[in-house]
Amino acid sequence: MVRTILAAVILCAIFMSRSEAQVQQSLNLMPMPAKVQLGNGRLLIDPSFSVAITGHKEPRLDGAVDLFLGQLRRQTGMPPIDMKVTNSASATLVIQCDGGTKEVQQLGEDESYRLEVANSGARLSAPTTLGVMRGLQTFLQLVQTTGDGFAVPAISIDDNPRFPWRGLMIDVGRHFIPLDVLKRNLDGMAAVKLNVFHWHLSENQGFRVESKKFPKLSGMGSDGLFYTQNGIRDLIAYARERGIRVVPEFDMPGHSTAWFVGYPELASAPGPYETERKWGVFDPAMDPTQERTYKFLDKFIGEMAKLFPDQFFHIGGDEVNGKQWDANSKIQEFMRSHGMKNNQDLQAYFNKRVQAIVSKHGKTMLGWDEILHPDLPKTAVIQSWRGQESLAEAAKQGYRVLLSHGYYIDLMWPASQHYAVDPMSDAVASLSPDERQRILGSEACMWAEYVSPENIDSRIWPRTPAIAERLWSPQDVRDVNSMYQRLEEVSRRLEGLGLTHNSSYAPMLRRIAGSDDISALRALADVVEPVKDYAREQLATVEPTSATPLNRLVDAARPESTTARQFADLVNGLLAGSANAEAKATMRGLLNRWRDNQENLQPLLDKSFLLKEAAPLSQALSALGAAGLAAMDYLDRSERVPEAWKAQQLALVEQARKPQAQLLPMVAPSVEKLIEASAGPIPLPAK
Amino acid sequence: MVRTILAAVILCAIFMSRSEAQVQQSLNLMPMPAKVQLGNGRLLIDPSFSVAITGHKEPRLDGAVDLFLGQLRRQTGMPPIDMKVTNSASATLVIQCDGGTKEVQQLGEDESYRLEVANSGARLSAPTTLGVMRGLQTFLQLVQTTGDGFAVPAISIDDNPRFPWRGLMIDVGRHFIPLDVLKRNLDGMAAVKLNVFHWHLSENQGFRVESKKFPKLSGMGSDGLFYTQNGIRDLIAYARERGIRVVPEFDMPGHSTAWFVGYPELASAPGPYETERKWGVFDPAMDPTQERTYKFLDKFIGEMAKLFPDQFFHIGGDEVNGKQWDANSKIQEFMRSHGMKNNQDLQAYFNKRVQAIVSKHGKTMLGWDEILHPDLPKTAVIQSWRGQESLAEAAKQGYRVLLSHGYYIDLMWPASQHYAVDPMSDAVASLSPDERQRILGSEACMWAEYVSPENIDSRIWPRTPAIAERLWSPQDVRDVNSMYQRLEEVSRRLEGLGLTHNSSYAPMLRRIAGSDDISALRALADVVEPVKDYAREQLATVEPTSATPLNRLVDAARPESTTARQFADLVNGLLAGSANAEAKATMRGLLNRWRDNQENLQPLLDKSFLLKEAAPLSQALSALGAAGLAAMDYLDRSERVPEAWKAQQLALVEQARKPQAQLLPMVAPSVEKLIEASAGPIPLPAK
Repeated sequence: MVRTILAAVILCAIFMSRSEAQVQQSLNLMPMPAKVQLGNGRLLIDPSFSVAITGHKEPRLDGAVDLFLGQLRRQTGMPPIDMKVTNSASATLVIQCDGGTKEVQQLGEDESYRLEVANSGARLSAPTTLGVMRGLQTFLQLVQTTGDGFAVPAISIDDNPRFPWRGLMIDVGRHFIPLDVLKRNLDGMAAVKLNVFHWHLSENQGFRVESKKFPKLSGMGSDGLFYTQNGIRDLIAYARERGIRVVPEFDMPGHSTAWFVGYPELASAPGPYETERKWGVFDPAMDPTQERTYKFLDKFIGEMAKLFPDQFFHIGGDEVNGKQWDANSKIQEFMRSHGMKNNQDLQAYFNKRVQAIVSKHGKTMLGWDEILHPDLPKTAVIQSWRGQESLAEAAKQGYRVLLSHGYYIDLMWPASQHYAVDPMSDAVASLSPDERQRILGSEACMWAEYVSPENIDSRIWPRTPAIAERLWSPQDVRDVNSMYQRLEEVSRRLEGLGLTHNSSYAPMLRRIAGSDDISALRALADVVEPVKDYAREQLATVEPTSATPLNRLVDAARPESTTARQFADLVNGLLAGSANAEAKATMRGLLNRWRDNQENLQPLLDKSFLLKEAAPLSQALSALGAAGLAAMDYLDRSERVPEAWKAQQLALVEQARKPQAQLLPMVAPSVEKLIEASAGPIPLPAK
Repeated sequence: MVRTILAAVILCAIFMSRSEAQVQQSLNLMPMPAKVQLGNGRLLIDPSFSVAITGHKEPRLDGAVDLFLGQLRRQTGMPPIDMKVTNSASATLVIQCDGGTKEVQQLGEDESYRLEVANSGARLSAPTTLGVMRGLQTFLQLVQTTGDGFAVPAISIDDNPRFPWRGLMIDVGRHFIPLDVLKRNLDGMAAVKLNVFHWHLSENQGFRVESKKFPKLSGMGSDGLFYTQNGIRDLIAYARERGIRVVPEFDMPGHSTAWFVGYPELASAPGPYETERKWGVFDPAMDPTQERTYKFLDKFIGEMAKLFPDQFFHIGGDEVNGKQWDANSKIQEFMRSHGMKNNQDLQAYFNKRVQAIVSKHGKTMLGWDEILHPDLPKTAVIQSWRGQESLAEAAKQGYRVLLSHGYYIDLMWPASQHYAVDPMSDAVASLSPDERQRILGSEACMWAEYVSPENIDSRIWPRTPAIAERLWSPQDVRDVNSMYQRLEEVSRRLEGLGLTHNSSYAPMLRRIAGSDDISALRALADVVEPVKDYAREQLATVEPTSATPLNRLVDAARPESTTARQFADLVNGLLAGSANAEAKATMRGLLNRWRDNQENLQPLLDKSFLLKEAAPLSQALSALGAAGLAAMDYLDRSERVPEAWKAQQLALVEQARKPQAQLLPMVAPSVEKLIEASAGPIPLPAK
């Protein structure tokens, strides 16, 4: 097969130009497979659809086929009978699986598959059940409604992942996230071929796992919000059915206040301790100089090593500020007597001890950047939140590494910004092939200062599939327009799996409005985004804590405004002279709506305490609408704007760009472009 | 307290006219409490909210408060900490519970409560935990977003249900409905104070319960779609936490083909049997003349009586056509030798035998109308699907009775039609007080020929709260406009509980369209309703079976079109001369949209095989839009229409009224009114 890596837009173009005019569908595959070749015709999917499994058999494979059939039924509305798994070679879809999977899913197990669809039937072959799982997800993405039935286009796909570790980390320490919410997110992960759920289980603000050996961990350090061991086993089984490994993280020696509520003797200062309510880096840290610390950790890690079957065990290791160590004379004496120059040396000593414990219990240790130290055994894996340089450095030193820098989805970046980050770029690009082999992959990280069960899906989805594609697809799959087009389709499919990133939006706006008529609020909310990076803390007027309600507009607004992105495209089109009358009418319609929106919103602003802070934002949007319309008028008349008007409008945009209520009006840059253009060399836009 | 039963509209009016202008909210209570009196001011709800439980304590009460707090947090976005249940008398909400509940919830346990809310705090008192549960639901309905916080108005409510049995029946035999779907429906039931989940567990098309004693029941008669006993116990516990009894139904001796697949010896003809795929009444029936039948039922009912703790055990008993009995000479001989005149006598014999078994296992038997027979012991309860006359007859004979006639929600009636049905009306009204005491209540019945996990919520909700109000609220609460207004609010609250009656609509339309742009399809779908009563079978071109996909427009369309109802209100307003310019513009906007919709929909009609059947419906809607606009033009000009035009238009409406694709265009009657009016005495509508 000719290697044909193609972005979806190109695929669509080829597809649409095919002689069978009835085949008019786009291939909304995400992540894009390694090799795709379109054939002739398509396979109809109707209630006679059947699946046969040939070759290797294991319960996990049967389970994968059951999940697949359930999803196919949900997608098509077909009934749950008459679609049985048969062993007949006459089945619609024949699955040839060459071998089984490990009892505990391993890093690097073969996930490749080959999918061939013809008019008469489909064949999915894979070396392992994992490959079958990935291929079945691709098959589901290919199912379309057509003029004479549901159908999958004739196609030939040869696929395998670029990186073996493609993760999503969810922090359940800062805000507890119930198991049902995690499960639906696992469904989402499976749909976009992510294969590691990194479960950040302890934080200053909460210890979320039941320990039978140390019941006060969750008993006193969780506000009653934790997972039972049965619940955890259930989630791990759920993940395994979807080809997802579950890697637990217990952060130590810092980020550990919640441990000390029940067990103050672990800390480097006497206590007593309370579960932390604030956000940030705090002083409490485990005492690395006491043997009882390691005895505790030995018993605890032993218990957790049994509970979590995965090979890897994440010990965190990040952000120890060392203040408790500095203030403790016994610790200082210990450091002197062991010739330790600084706190990094002390933490390296701690890590080495913990590494031995983790290793004793049969696990491989994983930690954040800070665990990197000449004393750290080379078997440990480093997860970099600092960036490619740190990543390259660790790989050079012989460690296996994961990149998370650039994939922090709590920072509210647009999907395109994450999509542009490549684990193999920058400093990593210059590594030797052997060193590059040590780059295992990456993880999208959902840190949880500002997420609740209600809005967490809207932070993770739909942006995360862009990261999933970066980690699965060949490096040269990077067309941003194609990515966004396919992301929209993926987003809708994820809804069908029960994710609430879209469905939670209107109910939150209704609550904020205290009204059922939210059209004006929605017009505003649709074009704003939460402030980026760590600006939310900086802009807070009252210090946010874990007891702060997450019920404001900033909690409902999407991380990325689709409307603003589309408006930007329209403005770019206009300024490039390619806007037709319809595009211009759409732009004017939007600008009109924004200009008039403040007046429409005012009754709600008066009515709801949750909305009062949004008044300046609403005024800014109205001003932007008016300025944009005026600029379009000048452009339409091919009249150059007076300099004074331009200066005044730009000052207004500058003002409007400022965050209000921790939100940014995302159409400001596009309106600025319109103003600049109306004052620049006169373009002659197509009418 | 003065008895003040007020419909919500009146309450709102009083509320709005109060001197505190900032209190501008409506009381969207449903079901309307027995007595409501508004006070002065309101109680603010913020993260310092706390609950204290005084008086009787039981785990079920703590659970109820936890559920309440969880729901309050979801409604307000407040965090799950700092809202602990405390025992302090300084709590925001003090719950005084006088006594516990039975280990197994009983029919007729006290559900009354008294809720008093003042500026400074709230007090909920009730004789039992059940009353507390009901009162907490009322409290949740009172929480509103206001200008300076979430708040509950100062209010005094004294409430208790009109009937002790307020049920929802779900048929899981014809289409299997998974436990998670049932659980969210239990959440919905609790929200509107329904207290019996009647679980119709066996049908010709499927036997849905695992029996350890007779594993072939679900093993061969369920297509693999059944509940494990653990799953059933889990659901019963879930229901109990919400104050809901679970009454199992195993339909016998008819509606029982699925039993015979594994156990043909139970039947009155030799078999073999296959699970039925078609809908209707079928010949297979248990053999009432064989002792082995009763031995089987004794073991089976004994097992189920342990699994289902409720006092009542439903044996179905409906629709036995008797054909297998007529054709079996041994049965005929048995009837002769026992002096039985007809099949009713034989079924009565069967019922009496089964009643003895049910009674032996400590349960009270319940059955449909047909079990009524002079031989039936008076302890049995009759559920009437035939109507008030049958109901009254049974009550006169001394049986306790339930009404389900008029509450069959699969018949696609509007909420107002169910709301108008009263269990105490017609023949029942003339009963003596003692006889009336025997009317226990009613059940909404969700028969499942045409429901799947995807659309079942949209059939049950939002109409069922109207039935719930009929069963809870005083008989004179019957203002239809108020009901619809409150139903809209309840519908949104139910969404917040996870019900999918709204959220499943657009994804289904997208699948039907095979496109993401569903605006034209939605315009059509919004004004059509599935055909009523049993017309769907009559109009089917291909006989529907349990293997028929439920993915057509008729499966997505709502049972009741809100748009059509609102348009009818506008037309009535216009013809009454009370329409202002805005109302008229709205009408013209709608009519214009409908007229032009066929053109907009055409590309989708061409594209999707699922939509082709809707073409005539779309054409009819366009014709109705055009006719309505023309009629409005005549009315505006105060010009009488030519008779020929009127006749032509009415013929067109007559044509358009006809079902197409098993759907009815619900705006046809309103357009007809416009045409009639334009030809009648000239009104002078307000401009």
